[in-house]
Amino acid sequence: MSLLVVGSVAYDGIETPFGKRDRILGGSATYISVASSYFDNQVRLVGVVGHDFADEDIEFLKSKRVDLEGLQIDRSGKTFFWQGRYHYDLNNRDTLDTQLNVFEHFDPVLPESYRGSRYVALGNIEPGLQGKVLDQVSDADFVVMDTMNFWIEGNLEGLKKTLKRVNLLVINDSEARELADEPNLIKAAGIIREMGPEALIIKKGEHGALLFTDGEIFSAPAYPVVDIFDPTGAGDSFLGGLIGWLAYTDDLSPLNMRRAVIFGSVMASFCVEEFGPDRLRSLNEQQIYDRYRAFRELSEIPSPELA
Amino acid sequence: MSLLVVGSVAYDGIETPFGKRDRILGGSATYISVASSYFDNQVRLVGVVGHDFADEDIEFLKSKRVDLEGLQIDRSGKTFFWQGRYHYDLNNRDTLDTQLNVFEHFDPVLPESYRGSRYVALGNIEPGLQGKVLDQVSDADFVVMDTMNFWIEGNLEGLKKTLKRVNLLVINDSEARELADEPNLIKAAGIIREMGPEALIIKKGEHGALLFTDGEIFSAPAYPVVDIFDPTGAGDSFLGGLIGWLAYTDDLSPLNMRRAVIFGSVMASFCVEEFGPDRLRSLNEQQIYDRYRAFRELSEIPSPELA
Repeated sequence: MSLLVVGSVAYDGIETPFGKRDRILGGSATYISVASSYFDNQVRLVGVVGHDFADEDIEFLKSKRVDLEGLQIDRSGKTFFWQGRYHYDLNNRDTLDTQLNVFEHFDPVLPESYRGSRYVALGNIEPGLQGKVLDQVSDADFVVMDTMNFWIEGNLEGLKKTLKRVNLLVINDSEARELADEPNLIKAAGIIREMGPEALIIKKGEHGALLFTDGEIFSAPAYPVVDIFDPTGAGDSFLGGLIGWLAYTDDLSPLNMRRAVIFGSVMASFCVEEFGPDRLRSLNEQQIYDRYRAFRELSEIPSPELA
Repeated sequence: MSLLVVGSVAYDGIETPFGKRDRILGGSATYISVASSYFDNQVRLVGVVGHDFADEDIEFLKSKRVDLEGLQIDRSGKTFFWQGRYHYDLNNRDTLDTQLNVFEHFDPVLPESYRGSRYVALGNIEPGLQGKVLDQVSDADFVVMDTMNFWIEGNLEGLKKTLKRVNLLVINDSEARELADEPNLIKAAGIIREMGPEALIIKKGEHGALLFTDGEIFSAPAYPVVDIFDPTGAGDSFLGGLIGWLAYTDDLSPLNMRRAVIFGSVMASFCVEEFGPDRLRSLNEQQIYDRYRAFRELSEIPSPELA
């Protein structure tokens, strides 16, 4: 299926307890596109980069069959740059530098060829811009969006407007509690779904994820990664695997949404095994399905009947 | 099967956002015994109470067919009393009062009739006392123990001695990180299992639990309780459901250990629905198995093959 992806395309400087990279390809749209490309979709990227964006990164995205007609190249400045350092426990990080550069005035204009996209993934950008993307797609079957505490605190009004227009919101647990102003995640989920999205996924990092659909909750485990090398991009890889599977199968049943959550978890679990998007460069179908099966084994509850 | 339970028998004063009780039956041995009694075991309790222990509480334990021959009644003082107040989010609590009373000099001496017990549950008491209990049982098939940060910080040496003598340790995630001195739970589990117990369960509260056995990890979900009334006793009810199922089935395979984790989670999920042990007073088999099935549905991952 056709899948429109909007978000940031960036360079990241990353330091983890295991090493350091000064400048590596990053950004939400990058991770979402690459992760979703493994599910045989027509991925269409909307974003902006500067004059310093490397040819080899263009080539990498093209090698994953990502359509770059919507990738604006703004020669007036440099590509969005973020630099951060992860703590010992990898659950926290300090931002050392943020240079918005050409991303500061990003105006998502869709090429004509993108406007009929059936699936839409709105990466974490300003809610008004997310809405502007939706204004340009004529009849999408399914829209998923990400957001963050920065917008919950800084533009709640705009965020709530966009929330009314999406089918699925994917956020982490602290964001869910903040957005709903409710510490109990199950109650928070009910409050958030009343804001618009029929479905909600709450990501809990090392504790897995929860999917809320009508009258049903699905609790997905986290893959027990012993050596998390670099958590950068895990959330966006989750989103990419999730929407990639949904677009590929074009099946929006609660049962298939469960599969999508696991494929998202699979892609996130691969992502953290190497720096930046490196592990996502060379996956194959066998590895992806093998890890899906590992998730099933990890959480399988046997029938209470003894043999 | 015969199941020996040792721990505290207490009165608790509890305040939660939903109400208040000045004095309600509590203590680890109480919750473990009552929860495990639902699985048709010969439950044998070892503990101590004071002159103020009420006849109706004795009657309640007897009504659950808990053998009280090992319950010492020390008329020189009062029963262990704990008073606490839970915060709004129910994940944190303040201890307002602790009166050890007769529990301060608790000396677990087993009646002759208890010494051949096949299953042993060591509730959270001083590690040396846990060891003393093990000295008195001749050939137990399976020993499970609980502990807490207080002993990790205050008697690590004694704790490590007892750890070498048990089959399964059940602790929460912050305790596991502290005991192993390692933030990654998967790595921490490996370190702890090298201290003695073949199997380890890490409880993660609202995020479920992890079971580590040889070469296998099982990730159990948490039941989505919307209205947690009172978390007191949840951990001990988990332990009771867990060991109750193992003793009942007398099957220590990794597959049956998974069932035990879920039955433990079932009992904990019931426990928090009312004050103290009130919800555990009147459960029936149907309710327990229905909730087991709810856990299975909650975390079932469908095969990736589309229908």
